[in-house]
Amino acid sequence: MDYNATTPLEPEVIEAISEALQEAWGNPSSNYLAGAKAKAIINESRENVARMIGGKAEDIIFTSGGTEANNLVLHTAMEHFRKSRSSAKGVEGSRNGYDGLPHIITSNVEHDSVKLVAEHLQSEAKADVTFVPVSKVTGRVEVEDVVAAVQSNTCLISIMLANNETGVIMPVQEICSRVKSLNKQRQHVRILLHTDAAQALGKIPVDVGELGVDYLTIVGHKFYAPRIGALYVDGPGTRTPLHPMLFGGGQERNFRPGTENTPMIAGLGKAAKLVASNLSAYESCMRSTKLYLENRLQTVFKNRIHFNSHYPGSDILPNTCNVSILGRTLQGGVTVHLSPCLSLGGYITRLPARAAALCLSVRPSHILLSCGIPSEVAANALRLSVGRWTTEADVDAVVEDLRETVQLLEEMN
Amino acid sequence: MDYNATTPLEPEVIEAISEALQEAWGNPSSNYLAGAKAKAIINESRENVARMIGGKAEDIIFTSGGTEANNLVLHTAMEHFRKSRSSAKGVEGSRNGYDGLPHIITSNVEHDSVKLVAEHLQSEAKADVTFVPVSKVTGRVEVEDVVAAVQSNTCLISIMLANNETGVIMPVQEICSRVKSLNKQRQHVRILLHTDAAQALGKIPVDVGELGVDYLTIVGHKFYAPRIGALYVDGPGTRTPLHPMLFGGGQERNFRPGTENTPMIAGLGKAAKLVASNLSAYESCMRSTKLYLENRLQTVFKNRIHFNSHYPGSDILPNTCNVSILGRTLQGGVTVHLSPCLSLGGYITRLPARAAALCLSVRPSHILLSCGIPSEVAANALRLSVGRWTTEADVDAVVEDLRETVQLLEEMN
Repeated sequence: MDYNATTPLEPEVIEAISEALQEAWGNPSSNYLAGAKAKAIINESRENVARMIGGKAEDIIFTSGGTEANNLVLHTAMEHFRKSRSSAKGVEGSRNGYDGLPHIITSNVEHDSVKLVAEHLQSEAKADVTFVPVSKVTGRVEVEDVVAAVQSNTCLISIMLANNETGVIMPVQEICSRVKSLNKQRQHVRILLHTDAAQALGKIPVDVGELGVDYLTIVGHKFYAPRIGALYVDGPGTRTPLHPMLFGGGQERNFRPGTENTPMIAGLGKAAKLVASNLSAYESCMRSTKLYLENRLQTVFKNRIHFNSHYPGSDILPNTCNVSILGRTLQGGVTVHLSPCLSLGGYITRLPARAAALCLSVRPSHILLSCGIPSEVAANALRLSVGRWTTEADVDAVVEDLRETVQLLEEMN
Repeated sequence: MDYNATTPLEPEVIEAISEALQEAWGNPSSNYLAGAKAKAIINESRENVARMIGGKAEDIIFTSGGTEANNLVLHTAMEHFRKSRSSAKGVEGSRNGYDGLPHIITSNVEHDSVKLVAEHLQSEAKADVTFVPVSKVTGRVEVEDVVAAVQSNTCLISIMLANNETGVIMPVQEICSRVKSLNKQRQHVRILLHTDAAQALGKIPVDVGELGVDYLTIVGHKFYAPRIGALYVDGPGTRTPLHPMLFGGGQERNFRPGTENTPMIAGLGKAAKLVASNLSAYESCMRSTKLYLENRLQTVFKNRIHFNSHYPGSDILPNTCNVSILGRTLQGGVTVHLSPCLSLGGYITRLPARAAALCLSVRPSHILLSCGIPSEVAANALRLSVGRWTTEADVDAVVEDLRETVQLLEEMN
């Protein structure tokens, strides 16, 4: 029940990978049969990935994963600013907005592959960054706060589609709509719009047209696909700039060179096809399992339970439940390690594994603190994220294991 | 017979990947069983990859492939120069050698993932680059030429271990030995030493200690492993600088973040183990098959054959044969597309596929021209690269197909 960390691969996805490993090992750049076969598989996957998000095949750039995709967007924004400044230099009076550093807007609850890149650019004095804080009431980054952060030198807004710890869904569509209006009026550098959809894909409908983003990050291993990713770019190199980080053999139209990882791309395509076909079934199944989980937790722990993934007015991912079990003996930080098959997720499990339950001073998640969860509650939070095939029996077993562990911990105190 | 472009996967490698896809899908950063299993596989692979090149496990950084590994080295060299300059600024008189741009030395026959990065840095006025020409007699970059190119601001020498088109093996060991002596004497920035071993691994013995390199690029799909790579770094972050291009979740000790591609890493490890165990058998088998191929070509085409992979005094990869078939009707550029199963390799096959033989004006390979091959000979070169399991019957079929095609072309003229 840690499906927000990663997911197993669907049997059909494994099959697609295995077939490509056996049959499509040719170099996709080779024009003879072995290469053509690989190329055809890659093209088909590109179509399927595009279809999953309502985009066009030519807008999909395969990357090694979400980390690379996110880094590529921030790199592109920097080059975009630099090139916009260069071309503005010739035009009288239009240098306005290019005097300072490029400015990036993001939230304070992003994944490290956005957050740390932004912090690095900041610390190297290469960019100014505004980390817009999420609301401590809604857990969301608010549209007005993002718009208010815009400066004349703002060149990128990067806001995740759904948070990995709380499951809170961010108002990306509204942000894009507002910023696109701004872009039309402003004389300054165009503000590029990015969302990291790692946690949203395969759980809620995601459509790049509806969202209005320029870039969207796709991470295979969060939706039962292998460890590979893609970046959606609305017209790469034409409508939307894309500046490569890597140089090499020309693959992915030079946007991301390197001999293509055909089998993993095959798996990504198959998993995307499954999502496109079955999303509503996956979604409703996860939602009902999560509801059952929340009910069971409430029944067992009664008023000692606090949901860190319930925010008034905010939509939450259908699979994500973040809870703290309150209580004197548990306060100040408690980490439970349940029986291996039922271990619990997220930041908690980064602590050393033990066979039995253990008691540690946990550093509360900065994301929960940002969302207004009090420190003593955040300190013993558990993220439980259900998968497509999680059953009520799985939930019962987890809740029972949790109940026993809490009891054990209380007896130890 | 285009095994220098890519290789199929060994059955044991496919097995290792398949097992990991099924059993080790956990996030290696998770501390419960599923994650620990993945972590263990990654560690074992790291050991095996290290053993293949005579290095230590902690010196292996997994990357998405050779392109990324090569780009990472050039990126590191730029940062290395910048940081060396910063720390020298305080010391009186020692700014010597830091006034200009960082200077990179490479050859004029490198893979695009080195060449284009260097050219990009040059065109952006971020680095000076010397492309040392290979000798038109030996096909090799000569040690004295490399040493003569060293300047006070030289921060990187990157020379491939073996060329992909000619198979010529470069004197990397001698270069490293000479430059290490230079490094001891000089007050300027340390010269980092890199070799791209993409084409050498699995074909000839490669030992990082003997070579004396700081960095070595490993590319899985050239030695019957999947599309993933690694960078060997002699003490990353301690003895040898390594500056990440990506920021994210801390994987690979922050040198290369992104959730690890466990199955592909498992496959890379298994393939590395096979190389470590069987290299001499692979090597002698490929060498004898290539000799047989060269003899057959000589017998069939007699004095019309020209070997573009024979250089006096140079060692050649045991599997690489580069030939031109001379003749009036074939001069000026001839490209043959043989029956699909026997199609021929390299740059030639980048041309549009046709069912039958076709006649086109081929742009001669810049690599062959650099090696002193006359333009009209280089224009109809074919790279034939045998694999571990290529048989004499395969060779016979290819040579016969080639004979028929040449005859057909001559009749057409």
